Amino acid sequence: MFFADLAARIDAIDSVLCIGLDTDRSRVPDHLRGADLPRWDFNRRIIDATSEFAAAYKPNTAFYEDVDGWRALEETIAYADGKEVPVILDAKRGDVGHTARQYAALLDRADAITVSPYMGRDSLEPFLSREDKGVFVLCRTSNPGGEDLQDAELASGEAVYERVAALADRWNANGNVGLVVGATVPDELEGVRETVPDLPFLIPGVGAQGGNAEAAVTHGLVDGVGLVNASRSVIYAGEERGRDGDGADFEKAAREAAKRLSKRLNRYR
Amino acid sequence: MFFADLAARIDAIDSVLCIGLDTDRSRVPDHLRGADLPRWDFNRRIIDATSEFAAAYKPNTAFYEDVDGWRALEETIAYADGKEVPVILDAKRGDVGHTARQYAALLDRADAITVSPYMGRDSLEPFLSREDKGVFVLCRTSNPGGEDLQDAELASGEAVYERVAALADRWNANGNVGLVVGATVPDELEGVRETVPDLPFLIPGVGAQGGNAEAAVTHGLVDGVGLVNASRSVIYAGEERGRDGDGADFEKAAREAAKRLSKRLNRYR
Repeated sequence: MFFADLAARIDAIDSVLCIGLDTDRSRVPDHLRGADLPRWDFNRRIIDATSEFAAAYKPNTAFYEDVDGWRALEETIAYADGKEVPVILDAKRGDVGHTARQYAALLDRADAITVSPYMGRDSLEPFLSREDKGVFVLCRTSNPGGEDLQDAELASGEAVYERVAALADRWNANGNVGLVVGATVPDELEGVRETVPDLPFLIPGVGAQGGNAEAAVTHGLVDGVGLVNASRSVIYAGEERGRDGDGADFEKAAREAAKRLSKRLNRYR
Repeated sequence: MFFADLAARIDAIDSVLCIGLDTDRSRVPDHLRGADLPRWDFNRRIIDATSEFAAAYKPNTAFYEDVDGWRALEETIAYADGKEVPVILDAKRGDVGHTARQYAALLDRADAITVSPYMGRDSLEPFLSREDKGVFVLCRTSNPGGEDLQDAELASGEAVYERVAALADRWNANGNVGLVVGATVPDELEGVRETVPDLPFLIPGVGAQGGNAEAAVTHGLVDGVGLVNASRSVIYAGEERGRDGDGADFEKAAREAAKRLSKRLNRYR
């Protein structure tokens, strides 16, 4: 069970930090560019440097959508798995039944996945039916455009994202569903928590996007289980230093950033 | 400009048929399984057999999400391009800005892409800003779960999918936006057409899903431009025959299925 494993991990390392591996080829430090798979080499070093504070890793598939990228992604997932850190594939998938079943094969590699609710239940069924895997449904996202559709008011008085939260709750027959709710919208975070007391949240937006860490922790966890994600603010923490120097201490900078953020989040747990 | 190129293609071959390359490894005929990239070998033969009737090809990325799959997909796109058939990548993407820019790189390879509206305008901006490329926004999808969220009634009286249609119309500053509306929901097709008279539709669901071909053509085209998609009913048309025989005439069966469907669609143009 994904959420039981995640709970054990959170307890073991005393951290709810999820680290997003949004590894942009153009931001891999120069001294790693000669590697066969620079993104994998970068991720391996980031994992070595930060796993002590990482309740989970979250590679976003967008950064791996090419031949070498998939190789790098597979190596990364296997490596995190070897370190016993759960991996959430940030894929935001969802498609008609026979196609969704193809996407669900992504879960053979990872422990959990993010999915889009727009196409409804049957588009998510192949994920939901994997009892051992976690399924995080996009609910209220952290980006400015999140309001375009998600905040629209329904005839029932709910916002679209609240309806999504209620649907996800209904889709949770296997106890493997969570929600993605952004730290940039703390009021909505609180509101969704009232609607669905039992679903753990995966909360992006506390790093580079400047979201509210206190609200994220206060409303995101259920029985202590939930994740607050930072991507760029951790993995590229050494970037400025690297540009002036030789880039070799990006691991140290990432480690410090992960440690700092993990401790900051712990203040509110 | 994607839609101008598509219009020229439709005129040149007198067909609005889009062929979905949902190439499942397990359904590639036995005699092709020994190839280095069976999916690419299959697609090449399907393209050779059907291009005369294909206004566009639409590979769904779900079927290519592994190392060999990305190689097969890249070869397939290049080959269709060499035959001057536009390629729509059915990816249903959409993510926060810096990530969406990564996904938008997918458009370097293809001529158009399908995207999900759930995360709003900024999540689609990197696609929308590619003036020369087509962007098909999911509106009312052909699957049963399409109703779960898309049919929800807003306080304004519109359904969610109608709001999406209106948003997409607003996002069409570059004249490169279309909508995905399923042939399985003919009433909704007609309604969306009334809401947005200017956006061409990409209409799945007339093949294996049993949708309404007449409604698809009647409401899907704008000045003759639009696409009606079939995937499995074309590319696997030879499957039954192949199971009994040697599987070698799957190309012929696909060609016949494409020709037949293209002509059927032409009755309503």
